[in-house]
Amino acid sequence: MTELTSALTAPEFFVYCPKCATPLVTKLVNGKPRRVCPGCSYVHYVDPKVAVGVLVVENGRLLLVRRAMNPRKGKWSIPAGFVDSGEDPQETAVREALEETNLEIVITGLEDVIFNDYGKSGEAGASIFIIYQAKLMGGQLQAGDDADDARFFDIQNLPELAFTSTDQVIKKLKAAKN
Amino acid sequence: MTELTSALTAPEFFVYCPKCATPLVTKLVNGKPRRVCPGCSYVHYVDPKVAVGVLVVENGRLLLVRRAMNPRKGKWSIPAGFVDSGEDPQETAVREALEETNLEIVITGLEDVIFNDYGKSGEAGASIFIIYQAKLMGGQLQAGDDADDARFFDIQNLPELAFTSTDQVIKKLKAAKN
Repeated sequence: MTELTSALTAPEFFVYCPKCATPLVTKLVNGKPRRVCPGCSYVHYVDPKVAVGVLVVENGRLLLVRRAMNPRKGKWSIPAGFVDSGEDPQETAVREALEETNLEIVITGLEDVIFNDYGKSGEAGASIFIIYQAKLMGGQLQAGDDADDARFFDIQNLPELAFTSTDQVIKKLKAAKN
Repeated sequence: MTELTSALTAPEFFVYCPKCATPLVTKLVNGKPRRVCPGCSYVHYVDPKVAVGVLVVENGRLLLVRRAMNPRKGKWSIPAGFVDSGEDPQETAVREALEETNLEIVITGLEDVIFNDYGKSGEAGASIFIIYQAKLMGGQLQAGDDADDARFFDIQNLPELAFTSTDQVIKKLKAAKN
């Protein structure tokens, strides 16, 4: 049986119809619970949250930033950020790296697409995480935006990482360097 | 100068606050136009639309489906569909292939992530298109869901395709077979 509540596809904080202000109800639409307007028949479809990150490796050292904000404040992650509606994820990656590290990079390849099952844990975050490989082009390393530190770390000796989603990718990097 | 209207980040059809029903206004938030509630300060962030497709190649033949619905009704595409909030894109790909072709597949690799700049053309569609490689496992080929035909085509002799986003990927397939 399909449950008639779902924080993912039928978020209850969507109380009123954004088109006509009628209070929404939750109904099954093609087998999935959705917030639906009994007034104008608007169906609220929820798109996945998408983030991108970049792997910048220079002389066996990986570029990481320390998170200045929650979740996982104080832990380290690769430069990353949410992709906005209509935004090219490669441009997001380049922009986030510049904002968080003051370094200019170019994307050189697609590393992986990782699925984060945040729905079950109830945690906020991107369910889809696109990871690109990138090359350093210039700039003076300096933390900014929602990072309060930015450094290159020896791949074999990394600090505590914020997100397990990158574990697999980093394992591959370590193996390649051995 | 940043424009204060944007169908992408500040969709005007979002008229009322979904949390408190106050009429929304468009304001710049961190440099981007957003629909914002003057009553409860709710900011409406719009996530990108994400689709996934699968490349299933058997003996030099590529699996395609004919679209029964607009856009591009009657044209052919690889089995594909939108990724729902919280959904694993690999599972979406397997499900869409089953719904549209009645074939069981397993994902064998990540082919590419393609950005579609639909924002500028005003066309509806996914701005992020994830393409997986997949292998045929079983099932009897039969079109279903929003496909009215499903067939394997010789890679060197494909019918008219619905979307240019796959052109690059298919060019690579053709080159690999030569």
